[in-house]
Amino acid sequence: MNYKIKCIREKMKLLNIQGLIITNPVNIRYILSIPVEGKILLTDKENIFITDARYIEEVNNFLTINDEFIIYDQKDLSDIDNQTFFSECENVGFEEEYVTYSQYENIVRIYRIKNMEETEKIIEKQRMIKDEKEISLIEKACQITDLCFEHLKQFIKIGMTEKQIAFEIEKFFIQNGADGVAFDTIVASGENSSKPHAIPSDKIIKQGDPITIDFGAKYKGYCADMTRTVFAGEPKEEVKKLYNYILKNQLNATKEIREGTSCKLIARNVENNFYLYSYNLIHALGHGVGLEVHELPILSHNSQTILKENMIVTNEPGIYFQGQYGIRIEDTIRVGRLESEVLTKSSKELTIVG
Amino acid sequence: MNYKIKCIREKMKLLNIQGLIITNPVNIRYILSIPVEGKILLTDKENIFITDARYIEEVNNFLTINDEFIIYDQKDLSDIDNQTFFSECENVGFEEEYVTYSQYENIVRIYRIKNMEETEKIIEKQRMIKDEKEISLIEKACQITDLCFEHLKQFIKIGMTEKQIAFEIEKFFIQNGADGVAFDTIVASGENSSKPHAIPSDKIIKQGDPITIDFGAKYKGYCADMTRTVFAGEPKEEVKKLYNYILKNQLNATKEIREGTSCKLIARNVENNFYLYSYNLIHALGHGVGLEVHELPILSHNSQTILKENMIVTNEPGIYFQGQYGIRIEDTIRVGRLESEVLTKSSKELTIVG
Repeated sequence: MNYKIKCIREKMKLLNIQGLIITNPVNIRYILSIPVEGKILLTDKENIFITDARYIEEVNNFLTINDEFIIYDQKDLSDIDNQTFFSECENVGFEEEYVTYSQYENIVRIYRIKNMEETEKIIEKQRMIKDEKEISLIEKACQITDLCFEHLKQFIKIGMTEKQIAFEIEKFFIQNGADGVAFDTIVASGENSSKPHAIPSDKIIKQGDPITIDFGAKYKGYCADMTRTVFAGEPKEEVKKLYNYILKNQLNATKEIREGTSCKLIARNVENNFYLYSYNLIHALGHGVGLEVHELPILSHNSQTILKENMIVTNEPGIYFQGQYGIRIEDTIRVGRLESEVLTKSSKELTIVG
Repeated sequence: MNYKIKCIREKMKLLNIQGLIITNPVNIRYILSIPVEGKILLTDKENIFITDARYIEEVNNFLTINDEFIIYDQKDLSDIDNQTFFSECENVGFEEEYVTYSQYENIVRIYRIKNMEETEKIIEKQRMIKDEKEISLIEKACQITDLCFEHLKQFIKIGMTEKQIAFEIEKFFIQNGADGVAFDTIVASGENSSKPHAIPSDKIIKQGDPITIDFGAKYKGYCADMTRTVFAGEPKEEVKKLYNYILKNQLNATKEIREGTSCKLIARNVENNFYLYSYNLIHALGHGVGLEVHELPILSHNSQTILKENMIVTNEPGIYFQGQYGIRIEDTIRVGRLESEVLTKSSKELTIVG
């Protein structure tokens, strides 16, 4: 059987659910490894993928006998068929964080389900640990992102707008084999850099501006996520000092990222160091990266997760002075058993551009 | 009061709901006319917008006293505040098609709501009819899309890839003042054109290929949607015949699009003509366009909607021969009282490129 389904079925036993309905397209892509639309039903007897004419051929060609999936065209299923799938299941799980209230009611009606059970992100939790193939795709996404940063160091000139730079990033990604951007690129210069989630604007890069670039390529569905703050000309001493302070925290946190350490502890450590110097970490220290750019686990003081080998997470401390400027440094990191591997390899030394 | 809220409150009376919770960001953007994050609570006493530090200033600056909105920062609201908002409401509506099952449970808990009522897309239905400002934004999105098509006629050359063309479209949109693309552009050449929802690939445009381009600009949040199938060199006689057959159906349907006609009838008419010639319309004939590229109404045999003035809809018949080729022609159209106005004005005559 598809090993991902095998793991899910083990967790289903622990949750005492005999059936599971999977409709979140990201979870479906994770399980089937191809981008197709439809829904997966795991019943007490079978693994079922229900799709439509647009995808039937592709899915049939891609899945092998080892996947042990039965594929149906939605339009060939009668009411009776639908009512039979879960007829022997006492409890059927669903994705309560994805399914709308209205879809929930439809599912109960169409499949005549006796008892629906919330599943608390079982698949999202499984997705935290990446397999070899997933890691190689994320590595490739990170490589393209690194190449792009090399290019940007030459490309960025005083007088350009933030939008121009953001657009160049997307163009570079596509020309270098990526699907595109993994998320909306942030290019925030001057006082815009004080907003952690700034949108690229028509603001022109000026002499002395810090420029925070938060960007990542998507490659065959998998994301990279990296931030570098660069400077259009030599920054003031205090800015340099702050940059190196953040970098030191980022490097220290990276050293702690390995199997067995708790996400909470790693985040708290940076938060506490910030407090000591009267700074404030106003967002999480990091998050998982995979098919989505923000996945589990979260690296914050609220997190309950213990890191495991082959989780892929970001480490992105930042400090922001509202209305003035901000600095953030972020890498995508593969958690290792003894030490971790930084997948985004671009230099983090203070970089002058323009 | 904000006239959009006024209309919603009238419908609330008909549904016998005294309160309404609006969390769908598209509906919030529609009501407030600016892109900010938060939620709207309509209670028996007040119109409330709950947001956070990122948007408070912007919202306060943008909304006027006539909007009659009270604005809160989420973090300033105590449990008691939340429990007070709907304390006098017997029934509170929510967006059952948007709210996840898990969010539904949270809403009931946080606001201590006595009875939650499904609202069957009241806001989405209101959004079907566009006001003057919305129409002018969609017109502008359509103009940029038309300009782009003019550019593409010169730009597309045999030997290019589908991805190159898709990328050029996005670049053109941004350079010409659009927010970007309204949806993922389809550029499907040769046999790829037989898939209605093909993703641009590295396939190279070859002599004789039909190229289906389904694209649209987004302008200040509002979408355009247009499809043209062009040809890299003179197509065969049978292909030309098919092209003109589809165009004839598209033009006939456009003539029927006006206030008072049912969406079902317009779609059935094309479907029946296709049947007569042994073709099959495998997707809806069209759909509403606005803040989202796919909105209500749907123009299909399932639709119950009667067209009204200032609805904006697409008209997009297509025929697809699996593994061979396909042709689709689509416009965005403003429904008029006596006749309708095609907003995408690019020529639909058979066009040779390359």
